[in-house]
Amino acid sequence: MKFKYIIVGAGLAGLIIAERISNKLNEKVLIIERRDHIGGNCYDCYNDDGILIHKYGPHIFHTNYKEVWDYLSKFTEWNYYQHRVLTYIDGNYIPMPITTETINKLYNLNLSNDQINKFLKDQSVNIGEIKNSEDVILSKAGKEIYEKFFKNYTKKQWDLYPNELDSSVISRIPVRYNRDSRYFTDKYQGIPKHGYTEMCFNMLNPNIHILLNTDYKDVIDDFNYEMLIYTGQVDYYFNYKYGHLKYRSLKFDFETIDSESYQNAAVVNYPNDYDFTRITEFKKLTGQKSDKTTIVREYPTWKGEPYYPVPTDECKKQYGRYKMECNKYKNVMFLGRLAEYKYYNMDVVVKKALDLFENKVNR
Amino acid sequence: MKFKYIIVGAGLAGLIIAERISNKLNEKVLIIERRDHIGGNCYDCYNDDGILIHKYGPHIFHTNYKEVWDYLSKFTEWNYYQHRVLTYIDGNYIPMPITTETINKLYNLNLSNDQINKFLKDQSVNIGEIKNSEDVILSKAGKEIYEKFFKNYTKKQWDLYPNELDSSVISRIPVRYNRDSRYFTDKYQGIPKHGYTEMCFNMLNPNIHILLNTDYKDVIDDFNYEMLIYTGQVDYYFNYKYGHLKYRSLKFDFETIDSESYQNAAVVNYPNDYDFTRITEFKKLTGQKSDKTTIVREYPTWKGEPYYPVPTDECKKQYGRYKMECNKYKNVMFLGRLAEYKYYNMDVVVKKALDLFENKVNR
Repeated sequence: MKFKYIIVGAGLAGLIIAERISNKLNEKVLIIERRDHIGGNCYDCYNDDGILIHKYGPHIFHTNYKEVWDYLSKFTEWNYYQHRVLTYIDGNYIPMPITTETINKLYNLNLSNDQINKFLKDQSVNIGEIKNSEDVILSKAGKEIYEKFFKNYTKKQWDLYPNELDSSVISRIPVRYNRDSRYFTDKYQGIPKHGYTEMCFNMLNPNIHILLNTDYKDVIDDFNYEMLIYTGQVDYYFNYKYGHLKYRSLKFDFETIDSESYQNAAVVNYPNDYDFTRITEFKKLTGQKSDKTTIVREYPTWKGEPYYPVPTDECKKQYGRYKMECNKYKNVMFLGRLAEYKYYNMDVVVKKALDLFENKVNR
Repeated sequence: MKFKYIIVGAGLAGLIIAERISNKLNEKVLIIERRDHIGGNCYDCYNDDGILIHKYGPHIFHTNYKEVWDYLSKFTEWNYYQHRVLTYIDGNYIPMPITTETINKLYNLNLSNDQINKFLKDQSVNIGEIKNSEDVILSKAGKEIYEKFFKNYTKKQWDLYPNELDSSVISRIPVRYNRDSRYFTDKYQGIPKHGYTEMCFNMLNPNIHILLNTDYKDVIDDFNYEMLIYTGQVDYYFNYKYGHLKYRSLKFDFETIDSESYQNAAVVNYPNDYDFTRITEFKKLTGQKSDKTTIVREYPTWKGEPYYPVPTDECKKQYGRYKMECNKYKNVMFLGRLAEYKYYNMDVVVKKALDLFENKVNR
């Protein structure tokens, strides 16, 4: 069977490439997807209690790329949600990331920005060369903040302590010397107004054929194609010839509660208590009204679906061998979090897909 | 590409055949579906207001076949809903079908079953041979009931008057000499507890591959198969060689109302007022709670998706010519409402699919 373009994976990356090829080049494409639905990990759906949930954990869109925001806005309206996170520390709910408000709440103070700046400087540890994620926090906010907010959360999330992780990992969650207590500071933030799944459906058109519930390896030999865009696990593509890449996974424990509200933020982090990392309450993200509410507790695990590439030197080195193989293929493009073994946020995936189309596909 | 079994259409008929083949014969199957979703016309989904709607009009499951009920019960729990319909006549809401209660409400009487029986006999017209749908009602309930309840509704629904339609058409909606005011009297009645779409997803397994958004004719020549089970329009299969079969279609006009309830029954028929035939309020079917409610008005039309085969002698004769062609194929099975050009209820489709599997596929 002949398709000029075949795409493996119907997540954001695959769908965007399909949309571009079908609309811009007016070509037919085939997407092959292992799951029985499109949308990848940003798939959302209504649960049995009629609450819109994010099946693979909370997804909050945020970007500074105007082109990415404008592109997605062709397929969805937005709920202009701005993400805020609380962290449960010593029995109290403290705003994350570390800002003026965090320190004031934690120590029951009422300091100004400048005073907080000085306070944190006094706490901070003089580290010579920043070598890992522990060094980042110790040098910015000192030992107590590190212990309470970061040490155990990181251990739960990655099964590694911050001193075993590259400094870039923890820099996602910064320390700020101001009152901006939002989790993200990007210019554009929101949740698709009617859900990610509906946004994904809006990208489809009759030139995009989708083969669901199908491992691409079971069928790919029967297809005749000029270009393959692969968004699955890179190690699987190469039959694990350099070994299995490590991916951190999550076990989701959903619960619907017979109450209008469960917690005071969409996400509450639990660095020190319990084995889950955080609790998300979906209605606080989506704005849905109901007299029930659904939450999810996330338990990081090494088993299950691959979610997070592991940010250690060892893993990066192993991926490097696969990357060399990828470069040998002229008619296969590797795109996305699983295929590039990088912890991309959604906006970066969109950007990468748009760029790949412009630079490599539409030549 | 090789699949021993290919199924065209991912509606109830196609999914059930796929489920049987994959589970009972342990064979892989491919379903090719023109739409971008499975479930055919019983597909339901949450709309932008978070209300579960039936996208292609109200579907109420009812059957006397225990095997059909038991089979579907493997894939869903049930909301034990029993369907009741009101008809809007002269500004009042009167129960349908015609029962003791209907007559008492219509004429503001308080007669017993026996008295109603006599009342209707007095009204009834002495018809010799029952030749059409008008004769059915006139002989059972007389001219006034015929005019108020049936004449204009039938004209809206079929664009034909009852005297142009076979007697079997109107016999779906009987006259009863008792107080059973339920719309259906089947032993098993209900709505899948979490929706038809979820029931359909529960039928899937990793041996069922689904190619969505694809007209089977665009790809079928590239497949190698031993048996094709075709559930699409029969005239399309044969490239309309005997002309286009007539199908009655529907235009759906959905509206969400900022009120907890809209009407006193899930379905209210409008035989004489407006151009729509009926209004369905979905929450009354599904039992969902919300402070909003979504309704749909149905306008029968000759344009659009094919829903109802037209029950006239002329249409049946035309279909007969296609049926002769169907019989010539040994490795193609024609199954379902569109392929057999018959107004099957859902339970009959399930029964036909199960029987086809046992008698023709699993030989």
